[in-house]
Amino acid sequence: MRLRKKPWIDEALAEYRHIVFKGPDHNLRGCWAEIFGRNALLYAELGTGKGQFISDYAERYPEVNFVGIEAQQDVLYYAAKKVSERRLGNVRLIVCNITDILEIFAPGEVDGLFINFCDPWPKTRHAKRRLTYSGFLEKYRVILTAGGRLVFKTDNRPLFEYSLEQFAAGGLQVNNVTYDLHNSNYPENILTEYEAKFSGMGVKINRVEVIFP
Amino acid sequence: MRLRKKPWIDEALAEYRHIVFKGPDHNLRGCWAEIFGRNALLYAELGTGKGQFISDYAERYPEVNFVGIEAQQDVLYYAAKKVSERRLGNVRLIVCNITDILEIFAPGEVDGLFINFCDPWPKTRHAKRRLTYSGFLEKYRVILTAGGRLVFKTDNRPLFEYSLEQFAAGGLQVNNVTYDLHNSNYPENILTEYEAKFSGMGVKINRVEVIFP
Repeated sequence: MRLRKKPWIDEALAEYRHIVFKGPDHNLRGCWAEIFGRNALLYAELGTGKGQFISDYAERYPEVNFVGIEAQQDVLYYAAKKVSERRLGNVRLIVCNITDILEIFAPGEVDGLFINFCDPWPKTRHAKRRLTYSGFLEKYRVILTAGGRLVFKTDNRPLFEYSLEQFAAGGLQVNNVTYDLHNSNYPENILTEYEAKFSGMGVKINRVEVIFP
Repeated sequence: MRLRKKPWIDEALAEYRHIVFKGPDHNLRGCWAEIFGRNALLYAELGTGKGQFISDYAERYPEVNFVGIEAQQDVLYYAAKKVSERRLGNVRLIVCNITDILEIFAPGEVDGLFINFCDPWPKTRHAKRRLTYSGFLEKYRVILTAGGRLVFKTDNRPLFEYSLEQFAAGGLQVNNVTYDLHNSNYPENILTEYEAKFSGMGVKINRVEVIFP
């Protein structure tokens, strides 16, 4: 077993227990409107990391309820810190594997999903771990409302090509495909930490919107 | 345990037993001049895959002895097929993990190493698996002759940045750094399968030469 590097994280996260939950937890499933205390669009980011994207997004769109999911609690701590400091009442964070997403959201509960710069798992034998693998798409289909949307960004062109194939095989509609987001005219783009650094170095960013019928 | 997908590979590889060895094998170590039947420069590719690079390189440089190492024998089979069909007497292939490289080559036995588009292992907790991690560089230092060279190509900019840091921390000299090989004037570039496909799509290729003192 890998040893935890930051033993102080458990204690530090306790400070943010109104923001961060540990999943999978069936008490969350189907209860998000209640948890946020309002009926609103519900978006989720799969792999929230240190939370730059989700906190910028939630600040720009205060009318949306936003859940960030991240397997590594050592990383999610920094997201919780941002959300707390910026007093973003429309964000909750969950320490959980994306494989367990059906235990976090009820069928049709989610309006939109974001996947930003997920691990490309380049070896073929790891393809099922890619967050755009058909097995994941089937889970997203369950939790998304009819017409729900997945927005996917990656700098990894092989992963992007693979993902487009998976979307097509799943009968999903793709819109606004770009292979170079930062040199296209896409009006609204909220950067992740990773994107800010590497697009600044000239790395091309791929983006697509996927509609689940 | 993962099941092998191609049970016919063992039999098929037997046909190429004059080209493909299974490592780690101490009978190989220090014996490469003997195995090739001549004294010549000895180069090795770490992660040979389906062998397009090694077979093109060996054909262009018949005066070099070239060893390709690849952990996945299902993949290396295709390399063996290429080497056999093109009658490249200056190539041998080994099914082996790169972690075991000290059991394949004797100290100072190798003149040059190539790493082409290795797995970036983007998660920090997997950093020690990257083939340019300092722990690997120390092994390369042992098997390389004084002044020996590592040539490294990747389309993954974060991995490239990490690698440059590792080279610097190891006191290695870097030459001819480029962040866009296919738009630079580098005269001699032999493509891998992966590079041919993705550079054709406009993906930038990073390359560096590293000298081990």
